[in-house]
This record gives sequence, structure tokens and C-alpha cells, in this order.
Amino acid sequence: MKIAVMGTGVVGRTLAGRLAELGHEVTVGTRDTAATLAREPEQAESFAVWAESRPGIALASFADAAGGAELIVNATSGRVSLEALGAAGEADLAGKVVLDVANPLDFTGGFPPTLRVKDDDSLAERIQRAFPAARVVKSLNTMTAPLMADPRRLADGDHSVFVSGDDAGAKRTVTELLEQMGHADVIDLGDITTSRGAEMVLPLWLRLYGRLGTAEFNFKIVR
Amino acid sequence: MKIAVMGTGVVGRTLAGRLAELGHEVTVGTRDTAATLAREPEQAESFAVWAESRPGIALASFADAAGGAELIVNATSGRVSLEALGAAGEADLAGKVVLDVANPLDFTGGFPPTLRVKDDDSLAERIQRAFPAARVVKSLNTMTAPLMADPRRLADGDHSVFVSGDDAGAKRTVTELLEQMGHADVIDLGDITTSRGAEMVLPLWLRLYGRLGTAEFNFKIVR
Repeated sequence: MKIAVMGTGVVGRTLAGRLAELGHEVTVGTRDTAATLAREPEQAESFAVWAESRPGIALASFADAAGGAELIVNATSGRVSLEALGAAGEADLAGKVVLDVANPLDFTGGFPPTLRVKDDDSLAERIQRAFPAARVVKSLNTMTAPLMADPRRLADGDHSVFVSGDDAGAKRTVTELLEQMGHADVIDLGDITTSRGAEMVLPLWLRLYGRLGTAEFNFKIVR
Repeated sequence: MKIAVMGTGVVGRTLAGRLAELGHEVTVGTRDTAATLAREPEQAESFAVWAESRPGIALASFADAAGGAELIVNATSGRVSLEALGAAGEADLAGKVVLDVANPLDFTGGFPPTLRVKDDDSLAERIQRAFPAARVVKSLNTMTAPLMADPRRLADGDHSVFVSGDDAGAKRTVTELLEQMGHADVIDLGDITTSRGAEMVLPLWLRLYGRLGTAEFNFKIVR
């Protein structure tokens, strides 16, 4: 499948790398490709170096990446997701599956961050409202990026992932992609409003992260 | 241990019954004992009938129940918890462990309910602020009452429970009680502010309940 991964951070890179490894045609979308290639982040490998060893993965503007894709992964920071998808544009998103893995966290007040939307709204619903012709599916936001991409790293994949969305076909497409990555327990929570629940897990996730001293954990729904 | 269970609903009854079974001296606290014994709820067994088969469990006013107890379980509805504990009174709570298992759910807008406090506050913190001499521990609110009381009903107890609180000794006491009930994986999230995370899990819990068609499920933190 032709997949655009919006976002050049850890989440975007991890998912892009894994999806390419699984045989998909992956383009990473960014605001300004020249700036992305020139950037030398202090705490991570530069995108240019990362991309060098992954010649199969293209880099393009948000609009070009989305325009050529069948499925679009929103792996941008939740704070800028609407803006980033807006840069791709309504027309490039229309009819396409938008897999939203972002969390609407606000770190401006320090740690722990607050949620910018909660309880009676969610980032996924905001994206769906902003781009009504897109087929938004919320998933994967409840775990660390390496587990999103390769859940079998932990307990042979014996844990859960949620999907929320209004479009049954889009959820089927995402579920197949999740299973291809190794997710064995995909739970369909229901319509896009159920994203509120998945996003509101983040405060607990962050405290567990602090307490367990590792991000390599996940929720399993025992039933 | 002398335990007061505040609340005569399903959660209160289930915990009171189990704690008595485990050998504790249990008093159920209510606003008005005569009214509680006279009430004939439509959708549940009356308290009077329930209590008849459990002669070891006493019924008393909130104040009398709390006054004679070493540990107080808040199993009232989150909407009225502060009021109920207030009826017990600051003096009767001072120095005691208050195990808060309630959720601040507001059903006035229908289903799904909203959370009355979230993200930058929690019911447990409100209780701690209202009764500063009490030693509040949040726990058990992330699962259905039968699993709170007897976690081995499900997957031989292979799932998790969280504790949050400022008082290390109070968390130890609660942890021992949890282990006595069969909880094998008690995770100490940290201070009382970590209750926010545990309470914000409820929107996901409610959607899972709707989707799975049973309340007999629980979160396991796989790590």
C-alpha cells in the first residue's frame, strides 16, 4: 500500500521504517523538506542520517506525501496535527484512511503534561470534523512507538490495541495493517467519539512510565 | 481490622461481604439507617434482605461507622462522596486510612457519563484536601465491584490494580488488604495526584464495557 507518514520524529520514523520493512511504499511528510534534511537535533540522529540507510523511504512535503498516498498516518505532535494535516489539504485527504496515532498533550506547564482536549472531545474527533471527507481511525496512541511498530518485542505481543472510527471499511484496513505489524488483540471500541477514552489513558500511561522506569509496557484487556 | 464501608450500593455491599468473609470486623455506613433498611430498590435486592444473611456485618450512620473504624472504604457514588465523608466528620477520619474506590462520574447528560473532575484534579485529591488529617489512598476504581473484591474470578487474578496516595504507611496497609483479597499485581503509581490517571481510565472502561458486553474484564500492565 502507498502510505504517507506525517511527522519526522521518533514515532514517524519508527512507523515509517517498520511499514517499509513490511513491503509498503512509504513517504514521510514534513513541512519543509530542506529544513528537515538540514536539521541537526541534539538528542536524536538527524533525519538525513536516518534516511540515508533507508533508501526505500521518500521524503516529501505534507501535501505531496498525502497526495500520493492511499493511507495517511498522523504521527505529528498532537499540538500541531490539525495544522500539519491542513498543510496537506482537504482534497489530498478526501476518501483516504487517516490513521491518527497522536496524543493532544500540552507540555507547556511542565510534567506531567495536561490533555488539550478530553472527556467531551478528542484530537481524533477534531481531525474528523476538520476534514469530513477523510476516514479517520484512532489507534496505537496508547503505547510507545517501538511497540506500535513491533508489538512482539514485548511478551510475544500478548497485549491490546484499540481502534475507534466512524468508517467500518477504514477500521478494517487499519486492523489489517495492525495485524501485519504483529498486533494480535485489536479491540474495536466503536465510533470516533470512543477516541476520548483511548486518549484519556495517557495520564495513567505517563505515570506508569515514570514508575516502571521504562516505556516498554502496554495495556492488556484481560477478559 | 475494624473496617467501615461507606455506601450501601453494589460496590459497598460487595466489598463489605468480602472483607467480612476474610475475617475483618465490618460496619456499613449510611446516611440514615432506618431509611436504608426500609428502602425497596427496584433493580436490586433490598439492603435489609442482603444484611439478613450476613449477621456479622453491622449497619450504622456514616459517623458511627467511621468513628469505630481503623480503615474507611469510600464506596459511595463519586457525586456524593465529599458529602458522605463530611457526614462522618473530620475528627472521625483523622489519622485513618481512607480507601477511595469511587469515580467522579456524572450521568446527568446520559451515557457515556462525563468526569466531574479530570486532568488537573481528581476525586481522591478533593477528598484529601477536604480532610487533610485523613490518609487517602485511591485504588480499585478501575474495575467492576466483583473483581475489586475477588480478582481471582478472572484469569486467576492475572491483571493489575493501582494505588495512589501521599502516605506510604497507608499505601502499605491498603496493599496488604488488596493482596489478602487476591490482587497479585499492585502497582504504586505515586502520590495522590496520580489518582488523576486512574480516574481518567473510566471513559475507556465504559466503552470497553459496552463493546465487550461484560464488566468482567480488567487492565493488565504487561511489562
